[in-house]
Amino acid sequence: MKKSSLFDTLKPRSVDGLDGLFLAVVQDYKSDEVLMCAFMDEKSLELTLETRLMHYFSTSRRSLWKKGESSGNIQEVKSVYVDCDGDALLFKVKQVGGACHMGYRSCFYRRLADDKLEVDGVKVFEPKEVYVD
Amino acid sequence: MKKSSLFDTLKPRSVDGLDGLFLAVVQDYKSDEVLMCAFMDEKSLELTLETRLMHYFSTSRRSLWKKGESSGNIQEVKSVYVDCDGDALLFKVKQVGGACHMGYRSCFYRRLADDKLEVDGVKVFEPKEVYVD
Repeated sequence: MKKSSLFDTLKPRSVDGLDGLFLAVVQDYKSDEVLMCAFMDEKSLELTLETRLMHYFSTSRRSLWKKGESSGNIQEVKSVYVDCDGDALLFKVKQVGGACHMGYRSCFYRRLADDKLEVDGVKVFEPKEVYVD
Repeated sequence: MKKSSLFDTLKPRSVDGLDGLFLAVVQDYKSDEVLMCAFMDEKSLELTLETRLMHYFSTSRRSLWKKGESSGNIQEVKSVYVDCDGDALLFKVKQVGGACHMGYRSCFYRRLADDKLEVDGVKVFEPKEVYVD
């Protein structure tokens, strides 16, 4: 795979002791709802650009992670933006189902109201029906 | 200052060797444009919630940073969301001027097109006129 010249611009971070990570902010390409954010390493970014499907690096499992691999809730890349200091990318995607493993369309489904978090998101699937182990 | 119960939910990360950081994604409260992302420590998050003006922790300067302190481009908090795993917050804000130190409305002013980055953002101020040292 030809390496995108994008990499010349990027400045990776170290997160929880793992080097070489970029921040990915993911937004619905039509509604502009922020769906999630996660980290990517070089490999997952390359795969994302090559396949046009979002791939991440899971800092908890310490491994490559294709979004939707088990749930089917894939994210098709529509456009890619890079921030001024090169440590973050913004992806506008077509989200199948929901982005959040809790069953919500967006991972940001809790809103702070009067010092409490209340659910303010659209639930689109039942996790226990989707993540069958 | 009374500490928000929000902190019970949050799970900070270590970034570039600095512990106790949360990721802040910042979105225009009307247009839903993603303006920037940055990190916060507990203190900057407390100040943000108390003053309703965005404060961050600069990982390069290793210090608290009130957005707009030198440029005047403050960000007034309209609503706050927390993601499912508690390491990221989404702030919907009213942005004065532009979020980006390069003079653009959003820090994500470069779009990847045919393996090249091209400017795809609205320039709203001239940095050298704003950041006078």
